[in-house]
Amino acid sequence: MSAYKKMLVAIDLTEEAPQVLNKAKAISSAHGAELMLVHVVEPVGYAYGGDIPMDLTELQDQLDKAAKDQLAKYGDEYGVAKEDQVVTVGRPESEIHRLAKEQDVDLVIVGSHGRKGFQLLLGSTANGVLHGTECDVLAVRIH
Amino acid sequence: MSAYKKMLVAIDLTEEAPQVLNKAKAISSAHGAELMLVHVVEPVGYAYGGDIPMDLTELQDQLDKAAKDQLAKYGDEYGVAKEDQVVTVGRPESEIHRLAKEQDVDLVIVGSHGRKGFQLLLGSTANGVLHGTECDVLAVRIH
Repeated sequence: MSAYKKMLVAIDLTEEAPQVLNKAKAISSAHGAELMLVHVVEPVGYAYGGDIPMDLTELQDQLDKAAKDQLAKYGDEYGVAKEDQVVTVGRPESEIHRLAKEQDVDLVIVGSHGRKGFQLLLGSTANGVLHGTECDVLAVRIH
Repeated sequence: MSAYKKMLVAIDLTEEAPQVLNKAKAISSAHGAELMLVHVVEPVGYAYGGDIPMDLTELQDQLDKAAKDQLAKYGDEYGVAKEDQVVTVGRPESEIHRLAKEQDVDLVIVGSHGRKGFQLLLGSTANGVLHGTECDVLAVRIH
């Protein structure tokens, strides 16, 4: 029996993503598990506060599109089907919890910087992913 | 190619250990990896402070022996060879770091209690394992 059937790998879009993706690919293959590729875009509003009223929709749309394009490239490269590529907007921890639950994921894979601990996009930490995720969590050490 | 060649599973000796062991066994099989079984006994001196001078050697020896016996039982049950069963005395995080490095381990497996986060024996947390371990770390969710 295989320990895992469906894995979710959460990546940022830095040059470190391929390290995590390579590992995730090898692990999902070893277990014969499905692999979902997830990137969480933080809402532009978080970064810009909200003191100055302005329409950020267009900027947000651009960020989403850029993320989707990049994820599609990774999807091609690592053999992850279109329907398993997810770009979502929100707080990374919450979105990963939500997706893991909704999609019946049994292993979440995230990158980790040794001494600095876990890091996902924009300073959120994988501590948030660990606490609250109901499935197993693999921290892939980034070198 | 396999992502992992040598795994170390660190367990306490509570009734939750088999959950972690079952997962570790399935994962090491999926990767065709060697599995080391580790239990860290904390030095008796830590618990008893040291205000009253007394010889704790015998108590420590008894704890070590009990741990070795239990590990040997798990070793039989999960097919881990005698030479891959390690009982060591010290702080769990430090001992796991040390063993992982010395033994060229590429994945450390520990149990995790969802909301309470990681827990190893005697209240030490897997945060300590995560920070400083130079290889990947898998947190197995304990139910």
